[in-house]
Amino acid sequence: MNAFELYNPTKLVFGAGKVQQLGQLVKPYGTRILLVYGGGSIKRSGLYDEVMAQLQTIGATVHELSGIEPNPRLSTVNKGIAICREAKIEFVLAVGGGSVLDAAKAIAAGALYEGDVWDFTVQKAVIQAALPIGTVLTLAATGSEMNGNAVISDWDNKLKRGLGSKLVYPKFSILDPKLTFTVPQDQTVNGIVDIMSHVFEQYFTHTQDIPLQSRFAESVLLTVIDNGEKALANGSDYEARANLLLAGTYALNGTLPIGIVSDWATHGIEHEVSAIYDIAHGAGLAIIFPNWMKHVYKEGVERFVQFATRVWGIDPTGKTDDEIALAGIEATRAYFTRIGAPATLGELGIGGDQLDRMAEEAVRFGPIGSFKKLNKDDVKAILQSSL
Amino acid sequence: MNAFELYNPTKLVFGAGKVQQLGQLVKPYGTRILLVYGGGSIKRSGLYDEVMAQLQTIGATVHELSGIEPNPRLSTVNKGIAICREAKIEFVLAVGGGSVLDAAKAIAAGALYEGDVWDFTVQKAVIQAALPIGTVLTLAATGSEMNGNAVISDWDNKLKRGLGSKLVYPKFSILDPKLTFTVPQDQTVNGIVDIMSHVFEQYFTHTQDIPLQSRFAESVLLTVIDNGEKALANGSDYEARANLLLAGTYALNGTLPIGIVSDWATHGIEHEVSAIYDIAHGAGLAIIFPNWMKHVYKEGVERFVQFATRVWGIDPTGKTDDEIALAGIEATRAYFTRIGAPATLGELGIGGDQLDRMAEEAVRFGPIGSFKKLNKDDVKAILQSSL
Repeated sequence: MNAFELYNPTKLVFGAGKVQQLGQLVKPYGTRILLVYGGGSIKRSGLYDEVMAQLQTIGATVHELSGIEPNPRLSTVNKGIAICREAKIEFVLAVGGGSVLDAAKAIAAGALYEGDVWDFTVQKAVIQAALPIGTVLTLAATGSEMNGNAVISDWDNKLKRGLGSKLVYPKFSILDPKLTFTVPQDQTVNGIVDIMSHVFEQYFTHTQDIPLQSRFAESVLLTVIDNGEKALANGSDYEARANLLLAGTYALNGTLPIGIVSDWATHGIEHEVSAIYDIAHGAGLAIIFPNWMKHVYKEGVERFVQFATRVWGIDPTGKTDDEIALAGIEATRAYFTRIGAPATLGELGIGGDQLDRMAEEAVRFGPIGSFKKLNKDDVKAILQSSL
Repeated sequence: MNAFELYNPTKLVFGAGKVQQLGQLVKPYGTRILLVYGGGSIKRSGLYDEVMAQLQTIGATVHELSGIEPNPRLSTVNKGIAICREAKIEFVLAVGGGSVLDAAKAIAAGALYEGDVWDFTVQKAVIQAALPIGTVLTLAATGSEMNGNAVISDWDNKLKRGLGSKLVYPKFSILDPKLTFTVPQDQTVNGIVDIMSHVFEQYFTHTQDIPLQSRFAESVLLTVIDNGEKALANGSDYEARANLLLAGTYALNGTLPIGIVSDWATHGIEHEVSAIYDIAHGAGLAIIFPNWMKHVYKEGVERFVQFATRVWGIDPTGKTDDEIALAGIEATRAYFTRIGAPATLGELGIGGDQLDRMAEEAVRFGPIGSFKKLNKDDVKAILQSSL
């Protein structure tokens, strides 16, 4: 195990009806609120009205930024920053899924920075201050509700980049499983894949002697695999939705990577695909991850054997390590297919004409990943096998 | 799963040599420090000198309270409170095991309270303010390094009680596995039992649909069982000590009980024993816990079947649920015995003459526990079977 720091000050408020605590949770931070949300789903579900009623209980002045895209755009973030400055916003409240939360984080950091918020994504500047943020989550997927990370896209230049800081941890996040009952089937699928992919990035590591972290990661995977299918079978299954929501938070709240070297190459590759084609992040990950696994498993087959046996229950009897590892990778693909996720870029109408550009962009700062350091040729091979 | 709140702002700084960051970690809180520690072990190990050197780098004025007992006493806590008031202490630094940390928490809360600090343990008052606390942990056991709880004893009246508040979470805790290399064998044993017992209290529950919490708890147990034996075989095994230390923290940092009803009856019973006989907490738990299990398992045998099969690898083939459950309980006792923990109160020279008094005290506020609500007769029966 390596040395590490663990610090996560977000307060998670979890359970049915917890939006009723929103007013009291926001109150300490001020009354000039920027409400950030996506499309009309929170209006159709009645959540918008409930949030506004809560903010009225504390006499808040609410400014709104709606229309956050599934891959939130720099231009939209900049609109939010302009509102914050003009209206002297004191608190940013994100109501929605991971994209909305990510946009809110970028807005909160950008509002107190004189330069271009994009600077934070290209290491031109470090976040020194941010407006406080709170969230009401409506989708189990990104883990953004309990971490200090965000991903935004510069659509004009077809770039998708991340920013991160302890200063943009949400002060609180309200997680009501009932708010996820109405999530459409395809978004539930993408969320499941996203959560599992977050775990994969922190599970396939060469760091030795990490029994607790390994088992925690396997715990999240086993919970998602089982409850994901239950949530897809019955969207209003409270317990399945609750377990999926909690697993999504733990997949990326800093618990899993303590003391280990994470990978994150597959996310890097997927970002290049969705930057150009604007596909759902989860769909891209479902396509690419098993191909990444096949490309890298020989670098540490014992880790993939553990994955196959503990997570997928592969019987090792009479099999070589390579066979066990490959059976685990096949089980991953089979699960993704069973829940309705795509297996090839072709299914999404994406051909091979941009492979070089994507591979080039993915390694623009040098090789990516750590389980196997991927150069441009590796990335291209993985994308090629994903067509 | 039930509704819950999760909030833990302690910063964990984990790894070899991390005491070198102590000065910088304390600095934001002030320079008038109360250093709280136990016996001479931190002087013999050189840790005391290292801590003092770190505090000198920030020009701190250090007052000392040493001699914290294994079951920290109210009278000692009151000495610390007096120093805090007199010397206008700004920060309480605990260097030691769980008892030292618990004493520091009680001191930090008592210092800013006009009444008797004991009031917090008997619900006569609620903690409204506390001095900030930091810790350097030297023993894997209580989890006190990352929670807001403390247990202190009123030795004159033979009472042992807990206090708790979000205000006494340590601001930071430094966990260096190397600092635990020199922990004597019996204290390592007690720590292992203590950690496992914390998990048991949060594992045996009737709350349904808690797959993630269950697997997290099993992860901690499996890690402790394996690494506990390794640490006992070789006290300087860094990885074993590191895994044990991390497991101890996760056993009681608020991760395991989210959304479930915990039990804590066995801790309540053990507190009555160690309040009278001043035995090590871990020793008392090792004796009592398997007997509690036998007394209650029929209330929810399926939970004990899961425990037996997943944690102890009991083969269920051809066995009834009761047999599987009992095999898991026997495996627990066998493990405790294998690592050298006591199995009976008799081994510690404790007879049956105080059973009534202990049972009476344990249920003074009504029945205890939740897996099975224990009345005085239940507690007495469990103690009787522990003689």
